[in-house]
Parts: sequence; C-alpha cells; structure tokens
Amino acid sequence: MSFCDHIRSCNNYDTAHVVPLIAGNDRIGLLRRDNAEALRRFPDVFGVAQHEVEVVARGDVAAVSRAVDAVVDALVDERRVPKWRNETFDVTSRWGTPPVFRLDRGAVPFFGTRAYGVHLNGYLRQGDVIYLWVGRRSPSKQIAPNKLDNLVAGGIGNEHGVRETLLKEGEEEASIPARLMSRAISAGAVSYRMETRLGIRDDVLFVYDLEMPDDFVPRNRDGELVDFQLIAASEVLERIRTTSDFKFNVNLVILDFAVRHGLLGPDDPEYLDVATGLHRPLD
Amino acid sequence: MSFCDHIRSCNNYDTAHVVPLIAGNDRIGLLRRDNAEALRRFPDVFGVAQHEVEVVARGDVAAVSRAVDAVVDALVDERRVPKWRNETFDVTSRWGTPPVFRLDRGAVPFFGTRAYGVHLNGYLRQGDVIYLWVGRRSPSKQIAPNKLDNLVAGGIGNEHGVRETLLKEGEEEASIPARLMSRAISAGAVSYRMETRLGIRDDVLFVYDLEMPDDFVPRNRDGELVDFQLIAASEVLERIRTTSDFKFNVNLVILDFAVRHGLLGPDDPEYLDVATGLHRPLD
Repeated sequence: MSFCDHIRSCNNYDTAHVVPLIAGNDRIGLLRRDNAEALRRFPDVFGVAQHEVEVVARGDVAAVSRAVDAVVDALVDERRVPKWRNETFDVTSRWGTPPVFRLDRGAVPFFGTRAYGVHLNGYLRQGDVIYLWVGRRSPSKQIAPNKLDNLVAGGIGNEHGVRETLLKEGEEEASIPARLMSRAISAGAVSYRMETRLGIRDDVLFVYDLEMPDDFVPRNRDGELVDFQLIAASEVLERIRTTSDFKFNVNLVILDFAVRHGLLGPDDPEYLDVATGLHRPLD
Repeated sequence: MSFCDHIRSCNNYDTAHVVPLIAGNDRIGLLRRDNAEALRRFPDVFGVAQHEVEVVARGDVAAVSRAVDAVVDALVDERRVPKWRNETFDVTSRWGTPPVFRLDRGAVPFFGTRAYGVHLNGYLRQGDVIYLWVGRRSPSKQIAPNKLDNLVAGGIGNEHGVRETLLKEGEEEASIPARLMSRAISAGAVSYRMETRLGIRDDVLFVYDLEMPDDFVPRNRDGELVDFQLIAASEVLERIRTTSDFKFNVNLVILDFAVRHGLLGPDDPEYLDVATGLHRPLD
C-alpha cells in the first residue's frame, strides 16, 4: 500500500471498456459495454450503436427524465442498478449547463454520468501541529460502510448549489452552524474516473477547508456518520499510506489537503505523483 | 483571453509532433521530429530511428554529459540551441533518480527533458484582502523579458535541492533572509507540457507560499527582476484573465494560489477547468 495506490485505484478507468453516452452533440456519460448492451431493449429511449449510445427520448427535461426513470426501474428489476429513490443528480455535459435529464443517484455509475460532491476538511492547529476531524461512516451505508471519512461530505443533488450542499451536509452530518461554515474556504477540486462493479464513477469533488474552533465537537444528526475523532494529520497520513481504512475517495481529498498545507512535501518520494495525480482533467 | 487560454497555451503539446528520447528502458525526453532529424549526424551519441531516439553514448554520467555537450555545441553553431553555459540540469526519467547525463539549460527544450523549477507566492493579508508581491522581469532576460513574475522563481540546477534553490533564489531575487524563507510552505506542484519554437518544455514547478511581513520590501540583487509591486490578488487575477502581462507559466502558478486560497471559487465559470487543469499527470 502507498499513497499512489489509492490514486491508482480511483483512476483504474480503461477507455477500452466503455462507449460514450451521447445527447445531441455532447458526451454526457460513459457506459461500460455490458451496460450499453443492456440498454438495447429500450430503443425508444436509447439508441445503442457499436461505438456509442445515444439518448433518443425526446421532450423537455421532465419528459426525458421520466423515460430514463422507467428504464432505471427495469434495470433495478434486473439487479443491474441499486435505486436510491430519494435523490436525483443532474445529467449535463459540463458543470453549470442545463441538464439533459435527471437521474436517480443509484443509477449514476451505470450510465457513467459525471457526479459532483463536496468534501470538507475540518482541521485544528495546535502550535505547529495540524489535527483533522475524521468521521466514521455508518455500517448501514450503501457505499463504503464503516470506512473513515472527512468531517463533512455529500453528493450535490439536482438544483442544489455547492455552498448550499456544504451547509446542509454540515448541519446534518456534524452539527456545524451556518455561521461557522461561512468561514470554510474553497480550496480546489479533486477529480478521478473509476470503474466499479456497477459501471463508471466520473467524479468531481469540490474541496473546502474549515479551521475548527478548539471547543467545537461535531455531533451527527442524520445517522450517516457514527463517530468522530480528532487525529494528528501526520497519523492520518501514515494510516492512508499503509491501510484502506478511509473511504476510497477520501484518501485523495486528504492527500490534497496534505499537499496544500505542506504536510506532504518534496522530500516524500511520492510527492510529485500525488501533487499531479489528484486532478484528472475534465474531458 | 481567459484563465483557460493561459492553461491551454502551456499545454499545447501534440504527441504527433514528437518522438521519445530513450536511455536504457526509460523515456528521458521528447524530441520534436525536426530536432530528432538534426541528431542523425551524431551517430556515436544518439541513435535516431523512425519512432524514437536512443542515447547510445556509453560511460559514466560525466562521459555521457561530455558527449552530449559536444552535440549541443554543434547545435549552437547551427543556431538550433541557445547555449547558456552557466547552468546544467540533471536529465532523469523521474525526480529523485540518478541522472543519465547533465544538460546545458539552453538545450533542455531541444531534447524535451523534464525541467524542475521552484516558484514562491509572496503574499500579505490586510483584513480579508490578500495582496501578492509581483516582480517584473528584466528586459535583458532570454525568456519572457519585461513580463510580470512571482516574487521568487528559478530553475533547479543539478545537485541543488528544492529548498536550497528557493533559499538561494529568494536571497538573490528579492533579498528574503533565510529565517523568513524558512516559513515558506510547500503547497503543491504545477505541471504542463508545451511546444515552443525550440522544442518541448516538460516542466514541473514546485510551488511555495510565504506570508510576508507588512514591513518587508523586496530588493533585487541579481538583475533578473527590475521592480516589485504589491497588488491586490483580485486585481492580479483580473489582469491574468484579460492580458498576457505575466510570464506564461506564472499565470498558472498564481491561478493555483487563487484556487487554493478561495480567491477563485465555484461561482466562476472557469473554476473547475482551472482547478483540474494545472497539474498535468507525470507520464
């Protein structure tokens, strides 16, 4: 295990395994070939060709979303997709452009549409030492149960902004009041493209840092995190370097924090690979 | 002009224009095809094949360096290479591995060997406003004369470390005492691959931030920078967005600073392209 192993496992994407999902002139997703084949029986919604799949359902966003959702229901019945039924993500060619349709969060990896999240590094300085607040994910989470996590993290659902999601998740996951969260500093984006059992995760994480008051103790409200620990950043890094205790993408977010704050520097043999490996260009 | 235009112009590299420069089993450079052709008349030093050029000179680092240097002298005579004669760079397959040979800095783009530099963002906080110290390059500089620059920047010559180069350049370029420079924080790496008139720049810049004392005024000693200004970061960003006043790669270093410090955030339409565009993976 090494820092770069975590980066590699989040970037195990192989272009030979996928075909693009197209809407009009834009690529909006990446379908693994087996997933593309599974769409052949919905010719009113998806046109499956050898080298691409096209959205052929017509109408406004609501109409296309309904058509795709009926396909998702069928895929859930076939156990190809775990439907979440409580959250939809906008499907667009790029951040900030109008959605082509809205997609149940559980079906996002099947279609390989880009998903956006927000992660907060909650940290504390004591003298020259930096500590990180680390959460533990609930054993009942669908993804990465029991794994260690950032203080706050969440996917950005449709019609929600980045700051808005950060604020909402901060309250639900760690009882961070809005006034404190307003001091969180936007610090970049971590991006990766990963093949999973379900398909392709094409993820962009908006990263924020928040220096926490000494006397603040996070308290979870939504059951998604079961406890919190304050751990010296050096110890967190050693744990990342030697274990898989942290959720796969949280390793990358904390490595980015470590690089930006000089906790991981040029004397580490993995430094340059880490510093240049956390930001997959958006193509 | 936009933020992304600066990123694109530093990443205008086209794989179709080059062949790899090989030593043993490692790629150590990227030769534009016309430059590769020019090496055909030195068969004792370089083996030029259709799809690659190999270092065939044998011996220890000093011997291979002498053989390559004789080739560089001939290329200087042909005006293909501007020799600097005062600084050599280590040529390696990756940072931290022993050099295959040492190369005059002026010949680095011709061979497309990776070059390493160090750049310092010298900044000041006044209330909520961040100011950046900006240098202006001498009109007599070979590269980017008269352009605006970071407070301190320099190439990492052979046998010099990152911190050592930062310290030396800090003293020469801006009279920053060692004691103050020891507070500089390593903050990541900016990387890009660029085709220029001379060949390929395959650059990695180690980035540092230093919060400057209110009463410190930089003073240049080596003639490489002719003056310094303290400019509000927002004004620096606007100038980057709308002009080419800054040296090509300094635009990227300052954009990285802006992203990490929340000066450029998700509300800017170019944010994600900037945040994911400054760190070309090292391949």
